[in-house]
Amino acid sequence: MSKNKIQIFDTTLRDGEQVPGCKLNTEQKVVIAKQLDGLGVDVIEAGFPVSSPGDFKSVEAISKIVKNATVCGLTRAVENDIKVAAEALKYAKKPRIHTGIGTSDSHIKFKFKSDRETIIQRAFDAVAYAKSFVEDVEFYAEDAGRTDNEYLARVCEAAIKAGATVLNIPDTTGYCLPSEYGAKMKYLMENVKGIEKAILSCHCHNDLGLATANSIEGVINGARQIECTINGIGERAGNTALEEVVMVLKQHPYLNLDTNIDTTRLYGISQLVSDSMGIYTQPNKAIVGANAFAHSSGIHQDGVIKNRETYEIIDPKDVGVTESAIVLTARSGRAALAYRAKNVGYELTKLQLDDVYANFLDFADKKKEINDTDIYQIIETSNVYQQIISA
Amino acid sequence: MSKNKIQIFDTTLRDGEQVPGCKLNTEQKVVIAKQLDGLGVDVIEAGFPVSSPGDFKSVEAISKIVKNATVCGLTRAVENDIKVAAEALKYAKKPRIHTGIGTSDSHIKFKFKSDRETIIQRAFDAVAYAKSFVEDVEFYAEDAGRTDNEYLARVCEAAIKAGATVLNIPDTTGYCLPSEYGAKMKYLMENVKGIEKAILSCHCHNDLGLATANSIEGVINGARQIECTINGIGERAGNTALEEVVMVLKQHPYLNLDTNIDTTRLYGISQLVSDSMGIYTQPNKAIVGANAFAHSSGIHQDGVIKNRETYEIIDPKDVGVTESAIVLTARSGRAALAYRAKNVGYELTKLQLDDVYANFLDFADKKKEINDTDIYQIIETSNVYQQIISA
Repeated sequence: MSKNKIQIFDTTLRDGEQVPGCKLNTEQKVVIAKQLDGLGVDVIEAGFPVSSPGDFKSVEAISKIVKNATVCGLTRAVENDIKVAAEALKYAKKPRIHTGIGTSDSHIKFKFKSDRETIIQRAFDAVAYAKSFVEDVEFYAEDAGRTDNEYLARVCEAAIKAGATVLNIPDTTGYCLPSEYGAKMKYLMENVKGIEKAILSCHCHNDLGLATANSIEGVINGARQIECTINGIGERAGNTALEEVVMVLKQHPYLNLDTNIDTTRLYGISQLVSDSMGIYTQPNKAIVGANAFAHSSGIHQDGVIKNRETYEIIDPKDVGVTESAIVLTARSGRAALAYRAKNVGYELTKLQLDDVYANFLDFADKKKEINDTDIYQIIETSNVYQQIISA
Repeated sequence: MSKNKIQIFDTTLRDGEQVPGCKLNTEQKVVIAKQLDGLGVDVIEAGFPVSSPGDFKSVEAISKIVKNATVCGLTRAVENDIKVAAEALKYAKKPRIHTGIGTSDSHIKFKFKSDRETIIQRAFDAVAYAKSFVEDVEFYAEDAGRTDNEYLARVCEAAIKAGATVLNIPDTTGYCLPSEYGAKMKYLMENVKGIEKAILSCHCHNDLGLATANSIEGVINGARQIECTINGIGERAGNTALEEVVMVLKQHPYLNLDTNIDTTRLYGISQLVSDSMGIYTQPNKAIVGANAFAHSSGIHQDGVIKNRETYEIIDPKDVGVTESAIVLTARSGRAALAYRAKNVGYELTKLQLDDVYANFLDFADKKKEINDTDIYQIIETSNVYQQIISA
């Protein structure tokens, strides 16, 4: 059975960059775009060209340098937005315009003070106008997560009729449960007339911590693109984390879904984005956090040392991290201590280890983390030290 | 239809504390335990008493001061561990011993160099021995996520026969997909003889970013306890985040599942744990991150100002945050600028706003974030300033 390819649409430079205090300049964006292209993303959303002169310039500069990926610009369902985006994308080898409008009753009523039929017409007109500039047009139904499925299917049909190649179904508020988001995709796959002419795209937010799970349920149910950002950055609780969805698909081959991502570049690009934006990932961030591959508890360390596969399912090398760090704390067990002692040159017998370990626990109760220098000191102040050095 | 209560088992002080470099002293643990008790958690896992003298002392001190919650101590399936835990818990109003053993083939073969039947006997013996000290005994089947369901059901039956009140089904490696973890719980609910005498507990790790989704699928499929930590801290990519699962259940009342948590205390305790451990949450951390309720993009800000419900599904007050911060950047739209200008004393007409907004964009392209002082300067250097002040 051949694998189904999931397109990775990176929006670090557009939705990701909408973080308070994290504006990147054009030069920084170009550096990140080059790395995204090397990482193997299928689409780079480079900005929202009409929103500011700086954003226009960035989309234009990125269009000029990207070699493989499609370059995409965001617009509202407004003619001038679309015209300006087409202008910013004119140097792109593969340009895409991403246009759309809110479709939930809450958006239609409060944001647009409009009605359902008018919104469908605006959706059609926006896609048709974008299509007059580029072949590849993605349509977003903003707040699709809270839009009823029957109406959403009609909006999608109108966008396809107007020529949309991709239909983005955003869970704008991060409200959906995985089962709900998956069911929405399944409904659209089964009920949108003409769905074979376009692909569905997952765009999830992490307000309830469910963005990764929702995106995965989306592709299990037929979507073929995931919109995501490096480190899951983005407004509020951020977007789906690229590194998480890519590794979920890689670690579950039976799903028969894969991506073009070179996973060994994940850690490097995570660091680049953190440093450029000044937004650091927490140590316990999945895949790319400083502790993602570190083990400190005794029980776990013993397992890791006996057989990496006992606890770790991802080989750190697969995501660009060179090796698991073994960190010693008061929770660490004898096996971890013996392993580290051996690394610094002491082979301890079981009886020697008992004595050194007792000394280690006193030490570790006072100090948060034990490094190699501490290990020398622990061994040298143990009762069996003379016995160890004479061995 | 009456709501089903989900027990919240907090393991911030045990599994959460197994973070490299984050050891808490007894005094800090007691402060956190008091706050957890006030938050309304059902169980506080206070430590792993046999692991070090400091941990024993902490479990004992917490047992003395907790008023409402059950206090729990971890052990391996080893007699001395269990005896020491019972000793540490002797002052607890509601003590629980948490004992168990690895049940996946990988753990049985590499970690215990044992076989399936011996492991079942050890599980039975450990629970029976713990039961000789306390009424409330929780059994964990470590690496249950990778244990085949038929064998896992037999292990669970043995634990129930020995008197276990709770069966913890950990996805130790963070490997499961939500659908797999949910299916495992469903299988156990349907196939474990005597399951009505105990409850199933979800214990998930976040290695692939799926811990919250897995826990929710677990309770949808019959589990009645979730093991979690404040801020999702813990080894590697951490544990399930308490604040996330609690808010998912609160925001989805149709699931008919709720907890005893006072959500207005979530933000405060998140800050306390961050500060005590020196592990800061990233700005885009769901529910408790600094940006979780901040909006900076123009489109979104317009929506928030017109109607909070357009974008935000959680009222910040519900989790103890006083109000949404409106942050201005080059992505911000006219509505957000007009709103902030009004806050500092300027009511702008549509035409005045156009001029001030153009000035704002130039300013915002140079500066990452616009504060109130900047807004004065932007207005005062705009072409229409004389017109504004004479109005």
